[in-house]
Amino acid sequence: MAKPIIAVLGTGLMGAPMAQNLLRAGYRLRVWNRTIAKAEALAGMGVTVCTSAQSAVKGADYVISMLSDGSVSAGIIADRDVTEALGENATWIEMSSVKPKEARAQRDYLETYGVHHLDAPVSGGTKGAQAGKLAIMVGGDADVFEKAKPVFEPMGRAVHVGPSGSGQLAKLANQGIVAVTIGAVAEAMLLLEQGGADPAAVRDALKGGFADSIILQQHGTRMTTRNFEPGGPSRLQLKDLDNLLEESTTLGLSLPVSQHIRDRFARFCADLNGAEKDHSGLYLELRDHNEMKDD
Amino acid sequence: MAKPIIAVLGTGLMGAPMAQNLLRAGYRLRVWNRTIAKAEALAGMGVTVCTSAQSAVKGADYVISMLSDGSVSAGIIADRDVTEALGENATWIEMSSVKPKEARAQRDYLETYGVHHLDAPVSGGTKGAQAGKLAIMVGGDADVFEKAKPVFEPMGRAVHVGPSGSGQLAKLANQGIVAVTIGAVAEAMLLLEQGGADPAAVRDALKGGFADSIILQQHGTRMTTRNFEPGGPSRLQLKDLDNLLEESTTLGLSLPVSQHIRDRFARFCADLNGAEKDHSGLYLELRDHNEMKDD
Repeated sequence: MAKPIIAVLGTGLMGAPMAQNLLRAGYRLRVWNRTIAKAEALAGMGVTVCTSAQSAVKGADYVISMLSDGSVSAGIIADRDVTEALGENATWIEMSSVKPKEARAQRDYLETYGVHHLDAPVSGGTKGAQAGKLAIMVGGDADVFEKAKPVFEPMGRAVHVGPSGSGQLAKLANQGIVAVTIGAVAEAMLLLEQGGADPAAVRDALKGGFADSIILQQHGTRMTTRNFEPGGPSRLQLKDLDNLLEESTTLGLSLPVSQHIRDRFARFCADLNGAEKDHSGLYLELRDHNEMKDD
Repeated sequence: MAKPIIAVLGTGLMGAPMAQNLLRAGYRLRVWNRTIAKAEALAGMGVTVCTSAQSAVKGADYVISMLSDGSVSAGIIADRDVTEALGENATWIEMSSVKPKEARAQRDYLETYGVHHLDAPVSGGTKGAQAGKLAIMVGGDADVFEKAKPVFEPMGRAVHVGPSGSGQLAKLANQGIVAVTIGAVAEAMLLLEQGGADPAAVRDALKGGFADSIILQQHGTRMTTRNFEPGGPSRLQLKDLDNLLEESTTLGLSLPVSQHIRDRFARFCADLNGAEKDHSGLYLELRDHNEMKDD
């Protein structure tokens, strides 16, 4: 039996290596990108490059959407030419980071066309995408997920985390933990520096223990070596935290640590020229809070 | 050449398994414990049980102090009978968690008697102590550390992190990161629960990623299964955070996330009956903050 046909919408820094991994696994690919040059780079590999989202999704069993944000994705889904080109029983896999309510709205709308939907945002960055080792958090119906499992396989490790929107909720939870841990590590690094200990030796000593994390090792190193080239720019970390707090407010929840860290990322971006600096740059905000000069 | 003689002061939940691991490695041990019954349990293994700290340290090459806190340790060091029983060139290894300034005061005092000093607090709990897999953060002179390295070997992985007091500073940094990460994980777990996602599946999905940590996996599980039997009681977490903030204030630093989490642990202990609950119980404080009932 021939492998399913997959349409990939969005072949940027993440979408392109994901498409290549699907191709290597034997899937037939139809790709579209708004800036078509980025899609054409894949043509030589045996991918069908399409000039519109409509033509890409026509006849596809799965559509993988990996676009810049929820509004772009919503615009494409709302385009009736696209929606009507989708085959009944096709599955739309929304892998962009969109809001949970946007994911649920997509699901509701596509349901009226008989199209299945999963929200499946990822963590792991461009390195994870290239290595096929993304963490993929999937929300939606369990049986739709089971059927789609082989499609996720070449891209990374997919885990079904709940009903529609849950993948996006998990991504927000992920981003919140990352941001707050950065805040914790910044205070630890500054304390060690001011107290005359060797932060690199301490990071080594703490390896494998309760305080250890990729954030301690990688972002901690960025802080004490003053390397704030992104990586993950602080303006995106701020956007994630705003989305997290919007969602928690909708759920009637107050999340005080996340709010505190959000406010400090906002100050870093707005007042301290931090928007394009790596999110580990919250260390610089902490120094400024302590009226310490750059060194 | 005969292996060095080691005196172990304090054979409680941590000290006893550490002593056993030293014994298995061939060291000759002299142990003392205030409640002598705890020390006598080791007698059958070939350990010399002493009835006073003074008699334990007499003739020892190394003294390992693993007592309940800095004031107990300080009291023993200040006892001239003990100090004068220490041989010149002996090394006092303070493995209790004491304040950095207490560690430096110990070092200064013992120096006048020609006794070396390292501060070497540990992380890893009773499990780590039993397995000989403690993380040991060592402050003090590099050459004293180099000479003492084989003594640490049976107890865990020792890393020299800076001059006297640095081991204790590293331990405080460790405890601060742990406490703040608990605050981050509590908010993530509550968000996932209220948003209808499956927290256990999300913890699985995030394994190995930027948000992952032992805290996410172990303490996150405690939170969503409502298991707050200690483990690490919240009153000790609060004590650690108070010591952290006392030290940072001495250094002229404001650490706003640590302060925020400290205040919430104080509220949990004082107002919400949380003192003897595991430190993952900060999740309950967050629920109370959100006016949610126990479930």
